[in-house]
Amino acid sequence: MSALGFAAQSATGPLERFAFERRSPRPDDVVIDILYCGVCHTDLHLARNHGGFTTYPIIPGHEIIGQVCEVGAGVARFKAGDMVGVGCMVDSCRHCKPCLNGWEQDCVEGPTFTYNGSDRQDGSITYGGYSDSIVVRDKFVLSLPEGLDPAGAAPLLCAGITTWSPMHRWNVGKGSKVAVIGLGGLGHMALKLAKALGADVTLFTRSAGKEDDAFRLGADHVVLSGDAEQMKAVAGRFDVIIDTVPYDHDVNPYMPTLALEGVLVLVGYLGPLGTPVNAGGVVRGRRAISGSFIGGVAETQQMLDFCGEHGIVSDVEIIPIQKINEAYERMLKSDVKYRFVIDMASLKS
Amino acid sequence: MSALGFAAQSATGPLERFAFERRSPRPDDVVIDILYCGVCHTDLHLARNHGGFTTYPIIPGHEIIGQVCEVGAGVARFKAGDMVGVGCMVDSCRHCKPCLNGWEQDCVEGPTFTYNGSDRQDGSITYGGYSDSIVVRDKFVLSLPEGLDPAGAAPLLCAGITTWSPMHRWNVGKGSKVAVIGLGGLGHMALKLAKALGADVTLFTRSAGKEDDAFRLGADHVVLSGDAEQMKAVAGRFDVIIDTVPYDHDVNPYMPTLALEGVLVLVGYLGPLGTPVNAGGVVRGRRAISGSFIGGVAETQQMLDFCGEHGIVSDVEIIPIQKINEAYERMLKSDVKYRFVIDMASLKS
Repeated sequence: MSALGFAAQSATGPLERFAFERRSPRPDDVVIDILYCGVCHTDLHLARNHGGFTTYPIIPGHEIIGQVCEVGAGVARFKAGDMVGVGCMVDSCRHCKPCLNGWEQDCVEGPTFTYNGSDRQDGSITYGGYSDSIVVRDKFVLSLPEGLDPAGAAPLLCAGITTWSPMHRWNVGKGSKVAVIGLGGLGHMALKLAKALGADVTLFTRSAGKEDDAFRLGADHVVLSGDAEQMKAVAGRFDVIIDTVPYDHDVNPYMPTLALEGVLVLVGYLGPLGTPVNAGGVVRGRRAISGSFIGGVAETQQMLDFCGEHGIVSDVEIIPIQKINEAYERMLKSDVKYRFVIDMASLKS
Repeated sequence: MSALGFAAQSATGPLERFAFERRSPRPDDVVIDILYCGVCHTDLHLARNHGGFTTYPIIPGHEIIGQVCEVGAGVARFKAGDMVGVGCMVDSCRHCKPCLNGWEQDCVEGPTFTYNGSDRQDGSITYGGYSDSIVVRDKFVLSLPEGLDPAGAAPLLCAGITTWSPMHRWNVGKGSKVAVIGLGGLGHMALKLAKALGADVTLFTRSAGKEDDAFRLGADHVVLSGDAEQMKAVAGRFDVIIDTVPYDHDVNPYMPTLALEGVLVLVGYLGPLGTPVNAGGVVRGRRAISGSFIGGVAETQQMLDFCGEHGIVSDVEIIPIQKINEAYERMLKSDVKYRFVIDMASLKS
């Protein structure tokens, strides 16, 4: 199946137009015309091989919204014309305990990631959503609820589920006190989702000037994390802190702001925490440092349905695909409110 | 009230015989003749002012078993002759949210510790269990179940509750997979309690040769933490790891041995974890690093009752109080199986 996308050919080169072949649809596949694709920090990291495991050419993109154009003979859940989404995964073993629990992201054999992954049947490298179409096993295709703006919905497939999953895991609901560290792509979704779940929501931020946006997005309070007085005023307050910081940082100052048995959940960073974690910060008050990594397929659908009911989408800046390299540079400067989304119609121009 | 004990007069001096005054009993007090007192690492740390907040003279001891000799007019729960225990706390504010929840160890105003604390009514320094008697508010006095050896029961008041509380918090029961790091005073209690709770129990240890003891104490498996093969063989296995290591150590190697949503609970160390904690270790699989600090009063009684039903006591080496300084030196060399307990009758000799 001929396809067109934007690919990086090396760690240092720009993303450029790239014609390639998608695998032929199987009986359980859905063929999707891609309308919009969100731009995640992971796209940039993998395009530039920051992790050292990128296979080139790479076509990033795992916040995909599109329309079904064809389904395999074995697919009953979707039909041509349906609006659908695809997130970070396009397959998993589906028989291990985590998969059977709906935790495909923890598949014992490893899930098949949407790009830079390896197809479980033919071993071909997967290509992501910066392209005109994609072929995905039906079980990994999500239904887009009616009424949601498709461009704004695209980031729900990664930024949305990444912040939803830990709130679901730690029972955030009416009356919960939730704090969010960092106001970026993940952070702004965390504010919206926590607020819609009924929580009392606080944004921790290092710099002043974000108050208006924070309040608009769902925060009830804003705390400057560098201000000792403000930090002291929220001691013992939070049931859950969603820590979206995407680089090494010191978690110790946040621990005393957790309530007894409260939990700080890392969702944006996977590396070593260079500042020694103070054991006393978890021993006293039975607090915890945990983490969360995207979410399962059923949970993603649940999140999308919730967003449909509450009219929640991401705040996006829509760009043509020709601006993707510029967008990466702007992301590195946090110059985006709050997510770039590529209008894939631009690929034809 | 005249009393006799063993006190340290300075950070560098030995513990020596010391005559002192206990406060006069109040209407809600219980006066206890002390029979046995366990020897905790905290005793040594505070006697030697390792934390920098010791008031001298200090009489350590917070694993106390004794017999009631007198009760105040307002005390209904105890009468002269009852066998009782006293742990790490002798009072708290009793009106804050944690206190009302039975988490007196997290009292917002701070609990009154059994020694080196400050009495909430007259401000006097509290003196611990290395003495012939103690006066304690009735609400902080525990009933010793019938049939438990009083010397062996003494360490339940700190080592027992410290390992019980996190297992209770994290729902350890029949079929749980529990690992214990370290085989000392805390570790040997964790093995016994986990086994009696119905868990499948593993001991992580750095050195070979502890297998026989571990199996006798309740372990089903022993894993050498320095053996990469053995560590790999238990990947993804444990629901709860009770980490009793009392000094800085690297928790990263244990994280992959946790099941999805498993938790490592620090109970023996309150300082900085010098080896950077790898965020990926908690992000992948929603694992958590938590902690736990002794336990509440009601929970301690629950643990004692459980030990009574299951005939669980600590493995102890009984010493006369004149050997306390030598015992401290041996503790520093881990030369004790597994807890020293002072026979307080020796004080009269």
